Amino acid sequence: MKFYDNRIDDITIAYIGGGSRDWAIQLMKDLACEEQLSGTIKLYDIDREAAYENEIIGNRITERNDSKGKWLYKAVETIEQALYGADFVIISILPGTFKEMAIDVHTPEKYGIYQPVGDTTGPGGMVRALRAIPMYVGFAEKIKECSPCAWVINYSNPMAVCTGTLYRIFPGIKALGCCHEVFGTQVLLQWMLKDMKKIEVTHRNEIKVNVLGINHCTWIDKASFRHIDLMPLFREFAGRYSKDGFRIPGEDRKLNEIFISSHRVKFDLFQRYGLIAAAGDRHLAEFFPRTWYLKDIDKVRQWKFLLTPVQTRVKIRKDLNEFRKKVISGKEIIEIKPTGEEGVRIMKALLGMEDLITNVNFPNQGQVKGLPYGAIVESNALFTGNNIQPLFAGELPPGINDLIAKHSLNHELILKAGLNRDKDIALQCLLNDPLVDIDKAAAEKLLTEMLEGTKAYLKGWDI
Amino acid sequence: MKFYDNRIDDITIAYIGGGSRDWAIQLMKDLACEEQLSGTIKLYDIDREAAYENEIIGNRITERNDSKGKWLYKAVETIEQALYGADFVIISILPGTFKEMAIDVHTPEKYGIYQPVGDTTGPGGMVRALRAIPMYVGFAEKIKECSPCAWVINYSNPMAVCTGTLYRIFPGIKALGCCHEVFGTQVLLQWMLKDMKKIEVTHRNEIKVNVLGINHCTWIDKASFRHIDLMPLFREFAGRYSKDGFRIPGEDRKLNEIFISSHRVKFDLFQRYGLIAAAGDRHLAEFFPRTWYLKDIDKVRQWKFLLTPVQTRVKIRKDLNEFRKKVISGKEIIEIKPTGEEGVRIMKALLGMEDLITNVNFPNQGQVKGLPYGAIVESNALFTGNNIQPLFAGELPPGINDLIAKHSLNHELILKAGLNRDKDIALQCLLNDPLVDIDKAAAEKLLTEMLEGTKAYLKGWDI
Amino acid sequence: MKFYDNRIDDITIAYIGGGSRDWAIQLMKDLACEEQLSGTIKLYDIDREAAYENEIIGNRITERNDSKGKWLYKAVETIEQALYGADFVIISILPGTFKEMAIDVHTPEKYGIYQPVGDTTGPGGMVRALRAIPMYVGFAEKIKECSPCAWVINYSNPMAVCTGTLYRIFPGIKALGCCHEVFGTQVLLQWMLKDMKKIEVTHRNEIKVNVLGINHCTWIDKASFRHIDLMPLFREFAGRYSKDGFRIPGEDRKLNEIFISSHRVKFDLFQRYGLIAAAGDRHLAEFFPRTWYLKDIDKVRQWKFLLTPVQTRVKIRKDLNEFRKKVISGKEIIEIKPTGEEGVRIMKALLGMEDLITNVNFPNQGQVKGLPYGAIVESNALFTGNNIQPLFAGELPPGINDLIAKHSLNHELILKAGLNRDKDIALQCLLNDPLVDIDKAAAEKLLTEMLEGTKAYLKGWDI
Amino acid sequence: MKFYDNRIDDITIAYIGGGSRDWAIQLMKDLACEEQLSGTIKLYDIDREAAYENEIIGNRITERNDSKGKWLYKAVETIEQALYGADFVIISILPGTFKEMAIDVHTPEKYGIYQPVGDTTGPGGMVRALRAIPMYVGFAEKIKECSPCAWVINYSNPMAVCTGTLYRIFPGIKALGCCHEVFGTQVLLQWMLKDMKKIEVTHRNEIKVNVLGINHCTWIDKASFRHIDLMPLFREFAGRYSKDGFRIPGEDRKLNEIFISSHRVKFDLFQRYGLIAAAGDRHLAEFFPRTWYLKDIDKVRQWKFLLTPVQTRVKIRKDLNEFRKKVISGKEIIEIKPTGEEGVRIMKALLGMEDLITNVNFPNQGQVKGLPYGAIVESNALFTGNNIQPLFAGELPPGINDLIAKHSLNHELILKAGLNRDKDIALQCLLNDPLVDIDKAAAEKLLTEMLEGTKAYLKGWDI
Repeated sequence: MKFYDNRIDDITIAYIGGGSRDWAIQLMKDLACEEQLSGTIKLYDIDREAAYENEIIGNRITERNDSKGKWLYKAVETIEQALYGADFVIISILPGTFKEMAIDVHTPEKYGIYQPVGDTTGPGGMVRALRAIPMYVGFAEKIKECSPCAWVINYSNPMAVCTGTLYRIFPGIKALGCCHEVFGTQVLLQWMLKDMKKIEVTHRNEIKVNVLGINHCTWIDKASFRHIDLMPLFREFAGRYSKDGFRIPGEDRKLNEIFISSHRVKFDLFQRYGLIAAAGDRHLAEFFPRTWYLKDIDKVRQWKFLLTPVQTRVKIRKDLNEFRKKVISGKEIIEIKPTGEEGVRIMKALLGMEDLITNVNFPNQGQVKGLPYGAIVESNALFTGNNIQPLFAGELPPGINDLIAKHSLNHELILKAGLNRDKDIALQCLLNDPLVDIDKAAAEKLLTEMLEGTKAYLKGWDI
Repeated sequence: MKFYDNRIDDITIAYIGGGSRDWAIQLMKDLACEEQLSGTIKLYDIDREAAYENEIIGNRITERNDSKGKWLYKAVETIEQALYGADFVIISILPGTFKEMAIDVHTPEKYGIYQPVGDTTGPGGMVRALRAIPMYVGFAEKIKECSPCAWVINYSNPMAVCTGTLYRIFPGIKALGCCHEVFGTQVLLQWMLKDMKKIEVTHRNEIKVNVLGINHCTWIDKASFRHIDLMPLFREFAGRYSKDGFRIPGEDRKLNEIFISSHRVKFDLFQRYGLIAAAGDRHLAEFFPRTWYLKDIDKVRQWKFLLTPVQTRVKIRKDLNEFRKKVISGKEIIEIKPTGEEGVRIMKALLGMEDLITNVNFPNQGQVKGLPYGAIVESNALFTGNNIQPLFAGELPPGINDLIAKHSLNHELILKAGLNRDKDIALQCLLNDPLVDIDKAAAEKLLTEMLEGTKAYLKGWDI
Repeated sequence: MKFYDNRIDDITIAYIGGGSRDWAIQLMKDLACEEQLSGTIKLYDIDREAAYENEIIGNRITERNDSKGKWLYKAVETIEQALYGADFVIISILPGTFKEMAIDVHTPEKYGIYQPVGDTTGPGGMVRALRAIPMYVGFAEKIKECSPCAWVINYSNPMAVCTGTLYRIFPGIKALGCCHEVFGTQVLLQWMLKDMKKIEVTHRNEIKVNVLGINHCTWIDKASFRHIDLMPLFREFAGRYSKDGFRIPGEDRKLNEIFISSHRVKFDLFQRYGLIAAAGDRHLAEFFPRTWYLKDIDKVRQWKFLLTPVQTRVKIRKDLNEFRKKVISGKEIIEIKPTGEEGVRIMKALLGMEDLITNVNFPNQGQVKGLPYGAIVESNALFTGNNIQPLFAGELPPGINDLIAKHSLNHELILKAGLNRDKDIALQCLLNDPLVDIDKAAAEKLLTEMLEGTKAYLKGWDI
Repeated sequence: MKFYDNRIDDITIAYIGGGSRDWAIQLMKDLACEEQLSGTIKLYDIDREAAYENEIIGNRITERNDSKGKWLYKAVETIEQALYGADFVIISILPGTFKEMAIDVHTPEKYGIYQPVGDTTGPGGMVRALRAIPMYVGFAEKIKECSPCAWVINYSNPMAVCTGTLYRIFPGIKALGCCHEVFGTQVLLQWMLKDMKKIEVTHRNEIKVNVLGINHCTWIDKASFRHIDLMPLFREFAGRYSKDGFRIPGEDRKLNEIFISSHRVKFDLFQRYGLIAAAGDRHLAEFFPRTWYLKDIDKVRQWKFLLTPVQTRVKIRKDLNEFRKKVISGKEIIEIKPTGEEGVRIMKALLGMEDLITNVNFPNQGQVKGLPYGAIVESNALFTGNNIQPLFAGELPPGINDLIAKHSLNHELILKAGLNRDKDIALQCLLNDPLVDIDKAAAEKLLTEMLEGTKAYLKGWDI
């Protein structure tokens, strides 16, 4: 890297999953908006063609005049080529294909187990984790070998298990997991202030929150805007909208309907526990006993969110691919504007350019009291030059901790199952999941079917 | 107390629940067998008549020639009278009456929730705890006032919450919780040695076990007889009998059939986790998701244990009362022989007469790693003169810890609900229980009905 | 308080030690520079006259046109009057008088124990603590009664014991200890960059440091300016100046010579341990075995700092008093400019007006691993609206931890001695101090003499 | 091993340091007294001749009719030969020779630092540790390779560092450190009962003690004989004899005068802290600031113990060698009677033959609260079949903990210095030792001289 007073050049980023259709494009946009950084991004993907497409798309952006950040995008053949000399490593992969994901999400439905997302917890999250673990073992080993001092930013799910695998294999790794679900909750609080108090908040960052929990089921126990304590206001807000839900105006113009919720789960959880669950309802619903929000299709409808059939994801991918083709052929151009993601700000902070406090998935050193030491937890941290320091976030109230600690312990067990390739332990994990209220015989059958369906990614398992 | 070389006289024991029909008699028998101790037992009970009966029964035993331990039994009017000057306090009470217990056990059945015992965990255990907490608050306050240096032995369920209440109210209390379920598991291991290896073990004490967990769901991860490691043998044993179960020969002659199990739950848990669950199957089954062992009456039958209708308990009580009347009138005599309980040995150890290592329910100082500090856990401890020291028992494997920590955290929450008289928190507790796989609306209804039914014991609650 | 978009009015500050000749004036200056805040400051002091003088001085400042922050200063008669309604409580007191301080500092000299400051550790720090503890017990009790929700900022030494007393007596208190010694070390690093690299740093805040330890002996294990790692540079810097010392240019024009050092102790500690001790040499020298930096007067001179005779403090006070008189009579005016202290920024942050990360003395929740939980430690924390969250600072290397943990444990013991008024424990404390390398008989004599000399402040002690 | 009902044959013991002149003979005697065990002892020593002598001596004992335990003693050439197939490994070595020990003990005297033993702490203990660490690294590696399941009993000093090295190199090792100093303190309490109360105690085992601390500076905070609390009695005892000391009658007939003390240090420590320091005064005195008990020769004399010149050890060794020669030549015979050591009882307990509770040096899992996790601490533990479980011993009072934690942290640092061969860290260790109240320059000189003197055992160091 070359350091100047106000800018840094020659930064090297290794992008594992560099063929990513969506996240890679988001990063390109944010980098194009940032004039203080430049360098090279090496795109590595097992889908080489996709990586080459991104090389073209990325360089196309760099060439444009409205792109302030100038980056060279370069698809590489091997992960080693990507990693050598990297200052940052970004990991955003799909562990397996939509074929496997369809099994993750839909096989459990035969047993009455519905999963709106299926990538984090529940049977789907577990099996996805079992696929991801050997991949992340490989990443960790290669990072240890090729770029042990690089900062590693993971975007893939299941976040806690993927990030945890990196630390288990290479304890000295400087890795963190990033997720935008808390941002979405800050946006909801922005809208709450507008709806309840007619206060306009310029940016979600002005909503200060204390965050504690695990990815996709993290919680806010303190929230304020300037001097205003938002927790009592949220009680009113939840009271007003718990029955009919609250839709963020305009959201339907930005997002596929399948991803939109009415926050009824969040309101219900607030009314149970007094804390704001800081993730989308689709994710949240998966962490609790099946009978709460996912008993059957009808129940889901009442809670006003939607299941995400993998077929929809396939369709969205198809549309994206078409759009990308047009970009490559010059028929479409990508609009350069900030995405709201924080990857680039995180890099700037770690480069010593500005301090940043944001939520992060990181090994528990005590920042979330009551969850196991070493478990990957989500809380705020301070990012400064080459340094991440978790903030002490306190402790979840026992009613919630009881529910969350269970998942955190199960992550450890899933990791063990994955590392040992142990079907018996995988069965323990499955039976420990609150969505799985079936008996052992049924669970064994379900597990076998799911592992069979994903076995291309389970080398060395005895299924 | 008066200390001699080989005996101690003038010991004072306060017996709270001194009208106990069963436990009090067991204690009388063990004391009668023990020639090194003598003194006074002050019987306090809200059922004064029962306490007076026990005074008569106890003194009748003392008068007999075959009674080696000579004790004066004396029913007292107030708890203060019992406690002043006490060296030991024994608590064995029924929190509420069988009327409330019937609600604990049978109301949840309307929701498909079957509880073979219903006194420790599940909806029944929770509501029983809510009744017991104010009683134990009172005991702790009185002990603090009247006999702060006495050793307090609790026998009542729910063990963890009752003992935990004592420590919460009077942190300096010298209290412990005693339970014989682990002894029963040692006896099973005795029979296993006979059945599998033709080895006769004289006394269950010769089976060395490491114990770790929570009352009625504690676990053995190391077991040996002399140099023989019993864990691999138990794997064979479980393999041989997991399908049909194993009945301890002659048990049906000693116990009401309702209390007998075939250990199929224990075998199944061993096959899942590789550890021996050290309690009766009826208790164990209540700690796991409903679908595992208690899905419906038919399932229970397959697992080869029985539910315990409270009507049966009423019947047993009636028989006991008749027997007691005969004893009082001299038509029957109580056979003086050791009961297998350890209360008297514990007292001798705490008096400095002999060392004892046995399992005990005690605040966690780290003896069970992975469970919360301060939670009441069950593990082995060393008892010496005026001193109890837990042994470091290690950590449950994550698959089990996940299940047990959940209960341990729920105990804390139940205590909070009870101390704050907070129905909302009680609802959280109920919904956190793995037996309760119903939705919030149904759970609220169940809770209201159960609290209503027990409200005579819930002063100050807003139900 | 009244909240507006960009300002807050009607803030109430209680100032305990409101007759403070120096710290109070500093605060007045900083408040006068800050246009976003206004309100009332209630000055309470056992020296009422001094408090009334400060009322006059403060209001004189408020009246001036160049004062942007408008505050009403008001001396009050009782601590309760000061505390009722307070949003903030500031404590800056001298525990006892210079007469007692002279005994703290100079009596040990008879035994060869020299203390350059004598207010934090060593025999002087301990005896000062014993005087301060009952005062802080009183403050804590009154704060609990009158303003339990106020934020309490302590400036008095011994910082760790004073702040610790507040938490011991009122565990729910929102108290923190502020000290500027780390700022001074940041300034030294500023000068280092100028001296070694010709880099001008605008403000010490741009020097990012990780702070961990205890007040007046805290340490920096990471320091950076933008992307520049300052730790290797400090090694060079220490190498260059360890022999002759380094004087910050111009410091002699701002500070009494007595307070200036040449950082030789800091350089020596760096060469021993590789970390930067973040306090003035005069303070640092007191924390280590006597033979290191304080063996005798000659040794002190070689290390290029000065002892501070209490007579000098008396002289400085006299000068200050004369200056104050002139201010009151209008012959002098106080220059309104920022002092470099952070009290006002801390208040703004706690009022939700801006985030702040700075070092603070706070109970250890794990932010400094290796020091006891609950001990008052110094590390960075994030200040946001009504919230302080320590940053996880890591662990001192064992060579230093060994030295620091000793002091931290001794703080606990001093607090015990003070609360119990126990001379035997005080003797243990004294003998545990690394400056005290005399035998028990001598130590007893020294202790008796020191306690005798300070007995006006030791009500209830048996000396 | 071959297991019978009442005995075990074919036990294999590897004896590292098998040429031991003293400890090996003690073990032979205890084994000869024990009829339930038999097997082979493989003697390995770098002094092969001494090992062969012990082979002869041992087998000579086995052949005798009055020897109940029949063991085959066999000197072996390599450590691997000793370890393969071993059920137990005993380590009792002298790290280096008396030549190095003379430097350990006497070089510091030039700086006024007197060490009565010099094998555990202080400059001598540290340098001995630095010699021992590479040896123990080798033992741990070989044990991991050859006999990973064997129980390893270490007798060598410095106990904490030696045992700690084993665990650092092979975390799965089943190692413990044994020391008889606590037994000696129990014997003192026996004599106290006789002296103060005319009570005869048959065996020191009847004195129940709670033990907590570190080897050679461990403490008793609870002591009882039957129902008698010995702590208040010890206060009287210490009061009566603190001035003139107490000599155990007849001790001078058993022990070289050089090893006898009058317990004045122990009495003084009791009067300071209220706990009984459970080691000989010669050891205890080394753990505290030099001025306390070791200021000069005269002071030592007043405290009524003696320094142990290494010349005396040489003389004792010479006498022993002569005695051994006579035994080999048949002119003398070894008296077979129990030595009071517990090695054989420990083996029986670990073989499942009988439970044993005794003090042991073991990694801290929390048994001694307040000392670092993983540090080797001394406390009671339960020994059962193939299992050692520490008893929760509680926490030292802060006045003592402050002193002991310092040493425990220094052990960690010494281990680091030894593993890294780092003289700078060794200097930190030296300067952290409370006996070393000299300045850095002098300490560097002392260190260099000591390391020079021991450099034959410091391969790879840059001295």
